[in-house]
Amino acid sequence: MQFADRLNNVETSAIRELFKLLGRPGIISFAGGFPDPALFDVEGIKEASNAVLTDAPGAVLQYGATEGYGPLREGISGFMANKGAKVTPDGLIVTTGSQQALDLIGKTMISPGDKVIVEAPTFLATIQCFRLYGAHIIGAPIDADGVDVDKLEKLIEEHKPKLVYLIPTFGNPSGATLSLQRRKRILEIAARTKTLVVEDDPYGELFFDTPPPPSLLALSGEVPGSREWLAHCGSFSKILSPGLRVGWLIAPPELLAKATMCKQFSDAHTSNLTQATAAHYLTLNRLDGALAVVRQTYAERARVMAASLQRELGDSIAFNAPQGGMFFWAHLTGANGKSTSAPEFAKRAIEKMVAFVPGAPFFAHDPDLSTLRLSFATVGVDRIEEGIARLGQAL
Amino acid sequence: MQFADRLNNVETSAIRELFKLLGRPGIISFAGGFPDPALFDVEGIKEASNAVLTDAPGAVLQYGATEGYGPLREGISGFMANKGAKVTPDGLIVTTGSQQALDLIGKTMISPGDKVIVEAPTFLATIQCFRLYGAHIIGAPIDADGVDVDKLEKLIEEHKPKLVYLIPTFGNPSGATLSLQRRKRILEIAARTKTLVVEDDPYGELFFDTPPPPSLLALSGEVPGSREWLAHCGSFSKILSPGLRVGWLIAPPELLAKATMCKQFSDAHTSNLTQATAAHYLTLNRLDGALAVVRQTYAERARVMAASLQRELGDSIAFNAPQGGMFFWAHLTGANGKSTSAPEFAKRAIEKMVAFVPGAPFFAHDPDLSTLRLSFATVGVDRIEEGIARLGQAL
Repeated sequence: MQFADRLNNVETSAIRELFKLLGRPGIISFAGGFPDPALFDVEGIKEASNAVLTDAPGAVLQYGATEGYGPLREGISGFMANKGAKVTPDGLIVTTGSQQALDLIGKTMISPGDKVIVEAPTFLATIQCFRLYGAHIIGAPIDADGVDVDKLEKLIEEHKPKLVYLIPTFGNPSGATLSLQRRKRILEIAARTKTLVVEDDPYGELFFDTPPPPSLLALSGEVPGSREWLAHCGSFSKILSPGLRVGWLIAPPELLAKATMCKQFSDAHTSNLTQATAAHYLTLNRLDGALAVVRQTYAERARVMAASLQRELGDSIAFNAPQGGMFFWAHLTGANGKSTSAPEFAKRAIEKMVAFVPGAPFFAHDPDLSTLRLSFATVGVDRIEEGIARLGQAL
Repeated sequence: MQFADRLNNVETSAIRELFKLLGRPGIISFAGGFPDPALFDVEGIKEASNAVLTDAPGAVLQYGATEGYGPLREGISGFMANKGAKVTPDGLIVTTGSQQALDLIGKTMISPGDKVIVEAPTFLATIQCFRLYGAHIIGAPIDADGVDVDKLEKLIEEHKPKLVYLIPTFGNPSGATLSLQRRKRILEIAARTKTLVVEDDPYGELFFDTPPPPSLLALSGEVPGSREWLAHCGSFSKILSPGLRVGWLIAPPELLAKATMCKQFSDAHTSNLTQATAAHYLTLNRLDGALAVVRQTYAERARVMAASLQRELGDSIAFNAPQGGMFFWAHLTGANGKSTSAPEFAKRAIEKMVAFVPGAPFFAHDPDLSTLRLSFATVGVDRIEEGIARLGQAL
């Protein structure tokens, strides 16, 4: 059987293969990108699901609008307003998780050979998703304050990309957060060069102490012309439940209309049952309480991971402690004659019954083999200390 | 903003524009393709949703496998076995409605310029979905027994298509059912010419009196080599609820693996909550009872529609009464000096407060402007009689 040419650009992720090893009993895994299911507000979600199946079963179980379930579009509009971003309900569409928002952007925007700039490193599934549409992906370097804007500007001028994709807040895998000053510069560059910037923001609510800078979307009102070149992907996966598969896409009207048409032929619409459940949940006034617990829990786990890494691996590893989100991004320094190969380190770690993800797959090209990603989200503090101690032994 | 070239091939459906008119109070609509929500087994679905949120909230609300929720893959395997088709749970993946199964087939199989053969007429969203991947769509003629196999065989030999897409049972829009003899011949042609045949089967359970012939999938065991060239799309949308967005794709292992990779970057996975709800529902032994009511209700509506059409429009209209499904496919004969233009007829019908869909958009090329589609599924028998009487006045 001869498959489509577009598949030649993409392989099932190396990470997926690693994940098959994680089922072994006794392994402490920092490899995942999942939220902690013990923190899901099961009672609230159940109350919401029951309410909508009782109050509006005909609507919830029938076909629905491709754009999304009306009450949820209103609910997301209110949710975004609380985060300082003005979006009318018809300025967004509901997507089957924010992964579908990325897919619809790819389908709508990218012709084979088009260039796309992403952070180096960035979310692996974005690289693969865009490559399936034929994108030529170019990585822009980052530091602890997010993407290097001077270098990004030069890359935009050199390559004239179809779009720039960024995770400005508590990035995956970087954990980095773009500074306020850089956010404003990116909006200015987008407006001036007429380059679409896609802001992916699944982690923004997961801050530990103080909220991060406003999203590019929230700031776009301060930079004339920038809103016309800005798309924003959001998701309930990290703050409510990934199993519902409810995300959203905010974009300029013409782009949103084209993405809606593409969605019509992708999956017709997102489940009305899960959309209505999310919409009703937002009216229960339980989200703030649930989020407070998530923030506090993740903050403590991140603190313990930072302290354990310093204690157990010392100057053999370098990292910037994140201010929110789910990830540490680190690199092996080679100090004390230790290895700088994260893939080799990962193999030895698995032997010691502890797992993390080597950083190479997160680079679209020129991978830094000394890098690695550690997630603390699903591991209790005692197990974090134990797991990092094992890492120390493995190195 | 410059969009992807693939959008040049596709427009938002003409039908969608028509649907905006249907909100008018008092309109009797035969235009839809929706099941009757009054027949949804709301209590059963609610029981299932509650059970899974009580018994397995962590699994149901967490990220899940791209291939689908284990218990549902087992449930679908059993459901297909009852229909005479042997499929192991790992021989299928769960999709976000069967629309996504089509999208994944397009993404996996179709390179720009590839040829695809469909029935003329066929499901509109399939034409558009495949065109977004650059397919050149070729229509094969049908009659009351489904696609004309002699002509299909010649078209396959002439065009060497990437795949052939068929709705063999109670087709949309045709209402036609492929005869047993033709089914076997198609399987032989697929095996001999090594041409992928995609069987879309959302309506097969909606038979009125006697079950339809076995699916191509069920028959493939009788035709050596045919199973390797056969994909099958199924859905709970017409028999349980479209709002759950649960469908499935059955395909040879290599194709299924590639489609799974494409799904990973399309929406990661289908909602676990709706998958688990469907899986639990299947264990409640309520589906047969619910389906019996649906079959009886639709059968009566179809009988009334056939009688009303004959009484009110006489030999100005010709149609084959369907034996199941949701649709009448008809054409204006021009007898008695009446118009043969279905689009003009549709305009006059809307003035008389009754709606149907002109048939032209269901043809990939060379539309037959005298054709139209009428759905009886959501209209009670009194309103069917009234609506068809209005059609008589409009013609």
